[in-house]
Amino acid sequence: MDQNALKALVGQEAVKYVKDGMILGIGTGSTVRYMIDALGKRVKEEGLSIVGVATSDRSAKQAESLGITIKQLDEVDHLDLTIDGADEIDDNFQGIKGGGAAHLWEKIVAINSTKNMWIVDESKMVHHLGKFPLPLEVIPFGSSHVLEKLDKMDLHPSFRMNEDGSHVLTDSKNYIIDLHLGRIDHPHDLANTLNGIVGVVEHGLFLDTVNTVIVGRQDGPEVLNARD
Amino acid sequence: MDQNALKALVGQEAVKYVKDGMILGIGTGSTVRYMIDALGKRVKEEGLSIVGVATSDRSAKQAESLGITIKQLDEVDHLDLTIDGADEIDDNFQGIKGGGAAHLWEKIVAINSTKNMWIVDESKMVHHLGKFPLPLEVIPFGSSHVLEKLDKMDLHPSFRMNEDGSHVLTDSKNYIIDLHLGRIDHPHDLANTLNGIVGVVEHGLFLDTVNTVIVGRQDGPEVLNARD
Repeated sequence: MDQNALKALVGQEAVKYVKDGMILGIGTGSTVRYMIDALGKRVKEEGLSIVGVATSDRSAKQAESLGITIKQLDEVDHLDLTIDGADEIDDNFQGIKGGGAAHLWEKIVAINSTKNMWIVDESKMVHHLGKFPLPLEVIPFGSSHVLEKLDKMDLHPSFRMNEDGSHVLTDSKNYIIDLHLGRIDHPHDLANTLNGIVGVVEHGLFLDTVNTVIVGRQDGPEVLNARD
Repeated sequence: MDQNALKALVGQEAVKYVKDGMILGIGTGSTVRYMIDALGKRVKEEGLSIVGVATSDRSAKQAESLGITIKQLDEVDHLDLTIDGADEIDDNFQGIKGGGAAHLWEKIVAINSTKNMWIVDESKMVHHLGKFPLPLEVIPFGSSHVLEKLDKMDLHPSFRMNEDGSHVLTDSKNYIIDLHLGRIDHPHDLANTLNGIVGVVEHGLFLDTVNTVIVGRQDGPEVLNARD
């Protein structure tokens, strides 16, 4: 099966978990795009009444074009379920997100969601986190000193740059520093360390967050129960 | 002695610690304004060669108007000494800053400074922190949920608003939440808790930071050695 057909099947599997009346967090990414398509189909065919909160303008526009009501996070009092992608998921269902420079808003949506589901292709499933560079969102003011500090801590940081040599900016107008770690042995310790660094707004470690993972395997979607 | 005369004496005392060739962090506030005046005088009269890094446009402009060279934080590789105000300083020389909504940049400058000096009037010296509301800089996206979480934690949060009903915005375009705590018994524990809340960029607790405090007392400036 080709990659896109796999992603479409994963998206269709994911929306089976959506129930009438839910307030739904909607992530961003290529697999999520198929999920939104499948969600739009259910809304149209079954008359599901749901409200979506999107982590990006792109997802919000796609959802609205399919008749899904979109609200801002601060307009809803909770989220029932958030469906998003991930860049790496390890054997303990800990994850890295932020390849799209959106991990701050994604994390804010995730922690306000009763349940979280990640939908990924099988290349994202790893034994240990860290081959994927760990993104940090950092305040531009003084960021060269944050980079220097991270370098002294042997965390192999680099600024994420655009092709024209300017800094990649997040939706909150901050910079991204990627940590090229290779392997993260103690993600909770690393998260605590990064939380304490002045100038780091948020890191891309999503720990103890996901409840359900749906993986696109060659022989079809595999549903994994990560935690209740 | 009137309040302004006291502040002027404190400012003059503070600049005695400035040495030729220093890279100096320059804070913000009414006492700092007198310090900058005194610094300009030394630069003019003694030909001191110093470079300043300011935590606000206001201080930068005042310093430049007095012939002090101002650079951006990311243009210097370190700071020798930062002189700033504080909103509260307790018996252990722990502090709260952020009454001016600038504690994020002030903290970034402070942690990149080899030494830190706070110059205050005696009303800022307290036995326990917390009567002054503790400011948090928070990401606007999802901030109502951060407020709700802080409220459930009994931290008595409120958004800082302008008179026209809009949110006070920081230099990084974030919101301010003030925690009305009355008394903070364990500032390090509170700092760790706040560091771990997604959406909180930085809190106004400045712990184990200041080396020297100069207090404007009725009988003249008192110099306190907080820590080496």
